[in-house]
Amino acid sequence: MPHIASLCANSHRLYTMADHKWTGSVKSLKGVILDMCGVLYDSGEGGGVPISGSVEAVKRLKESDLQLRFCTNETQATREKFVAKLQRMGFELSVSEVFSPAPAAVSILKERGLKPHLLVHDDLVPEFDSVDKTNPNCVVIGDAADKFSYKNLNDAFQVLIGMEKPVLFSLGRGRYYKETDGLKLDVGVYMKALEYACDVEAEVVGKPSAMFFQSVLNDMALQPHEVLMIGDDLVNDVGGAQQCGMKGLQVRTGKYRPSDERHPTVTADGYVDNLAAAVDIILRHRSQ
Amino acid sequence: MPHIASLCANSHRLYTMADHKWTGSVKSLKGVILDMCGVLYDSGEGGGVPISGSVEAVKRLKESDLQLRFCTNETQATREKFVAKLQRMGFELSVSEVFSPAPAAVSILKERGLKPHLLVHDDLVPEFDSVDKTNPNCVVIGDAADKFSYKNLNDAFQVLIGMEKPVLFSLGRGRYYKETDGLKLDVGVYMKALEYACDVEAEVVGKPSAMFFQSVLNDMALQPHEVLMIGDDLVNDVGGAQQCGMKGLQVRTGKYRPSDERHPTVTADGYVDNLAAAVDIILRHRSQ
Repeated sequence: MPHIASLCANSHRLYTMADHKWTGSVKSLKGVILDMCGVLYDSGEGGGVPISGSVEAVKRLKESDLQLRFCTNETQATREKFVAKLQRMGFELSVSEVFSPAPAAVSILKERGLKPHLLVHDDLVPEFDSVDKTNPNCVVIGDAADKFSYKNLNDAFQVLIGMEKPVLFSLGRGRYYKETDGLKLDVGVYMKALEYACDVEAEVVGKPSAMFFQSVLNDMALQPHEVLMIGDDLVNDVGGAQQCGMKGLQVRTGKYRPSDERHPTVTADGYVDNLAAAVDIILRHRSQ
Repeated sequence: MPHIASLCANSHRLYTMADHKWTGSVKSLKGVILDMCGVLYDSGEGGGVPISGSVEAVKRLKESDLQLRFCTNETQATREKFVAKLQRMGFELSVSEVFSPAPAAVSILKERGLKPHLLVHDDLVPEFDSVDKTNPNCVVIGDAADKFSYKNLNDAFQVLIGMEKPVLFSLGRGRYYKETDGLKLDVGVYMKALEYACDVEAEVVGKPSAMFFQSVLNDMALQPHEVLMIGDDLVNDVGGAQQCGMKGLQVRTGKYRPSDERHPTVTADGYVDNLAAAVDIILRHRSQ
């Protein structure tokens, strides 16, 4: 990543402009949706570590008059285990406040009477306990990490290529995420692989799907323009929320890269250094 | 794969029409290029097995007045080992008659002073012995099969994402190939995965690259319209050859599927049941 100096100069200019744009609407906000990995914590060995100031920032939001929900594409654990991990890091949150792709996928499978072949992380499998998986007639992929072996991807491919009209669900479409030891390939990369292999388009469950964001808005009983999404993923968090009519803020933590601030198609309503800074600005503007 | 009966009826009709089209130009042919896997043999455990009649068909072509070359996207072995395997199956061919992506990639790397990170089959590595691989500034992927682990794909991704302008070479862009125990994912699937992860377009070395086909034509010192390509891959063999101005014949062996005969963008100049049938027709029309 060269030209860091010029990028930073550039991003500072954009920040100043964009900052003005989003803070103007802070007073009319009624709810905030937070992405989790890369905003609250950095994942990695042992479950990861909180990002400086984020535990306190969540606490401040909870004590405010804003509604708060959490929206993640995390698919390496059941929602229960995932929430327990965040609680151990010190975050105040409960399972009912967290929206993740697997429960949404289970609803869709049941509605449409589909039986999945799963290519997901071992720890996510229990989310699908209530779903019939005999004689599969679709494939569900999540962030399977080390389970994305050649054999396992080939097994999923065999199921799809044997169908008249292959049905592929992808739990998110992220390219990569940041762990404490570096960037790691995400489920979207393997979604693209299977899409190309079978000449099919996957149905994405999770961010940036509009249906997924809408389910969070429904739960808050709020209109899109009353809600701000904060995430580290420009396309899936910010762009997805904007498509739904929300404002979207990108934090410069997690998978953020300076080049995000000159992305050809998605421009955040604002860029802030981290969640603590975002919450500071929000609460300051609301108290003025 | 449903509607087999109607597809077969359909394909028979297309065959009759297309047959007429390609046989008209057989008398003016001066050379034939054969794809190997799926035309000469089916790969699988123990190296694979010859397709019925293909050993004799190659022998008949060699005894004719036509020039003959072999053009493969095989990247699971060095050209020497690969040719030795085919010779053990009974095929008459020599290393100098076989064109494969790895030697072509080595030429490109040397021309451009590039140092590759390799994600290829262990048995292909010796092809790159003469290339400096320290501090890699590009990635070369081939059909790595079981070596396409999450870790290895992630390692290749890390090299690419760390570069200002990622340079990715893919040895072919096939979706899948047929082994004796079923269809297997090919390198193109992983090329698409890395393209999406890094927002980059791979440079394809091998079929269907025009540069690759042209190197075979140069070796024969023939013009495209004087040469017929015979393959089982509609897009990479037939479509690639047609893009170069050759005629392209698809055999109904290997990875052939009935739906190929109603492909939206590529139509073969003819469809034949297997190589033996193709050679029969060619030699019969030339002797008339």
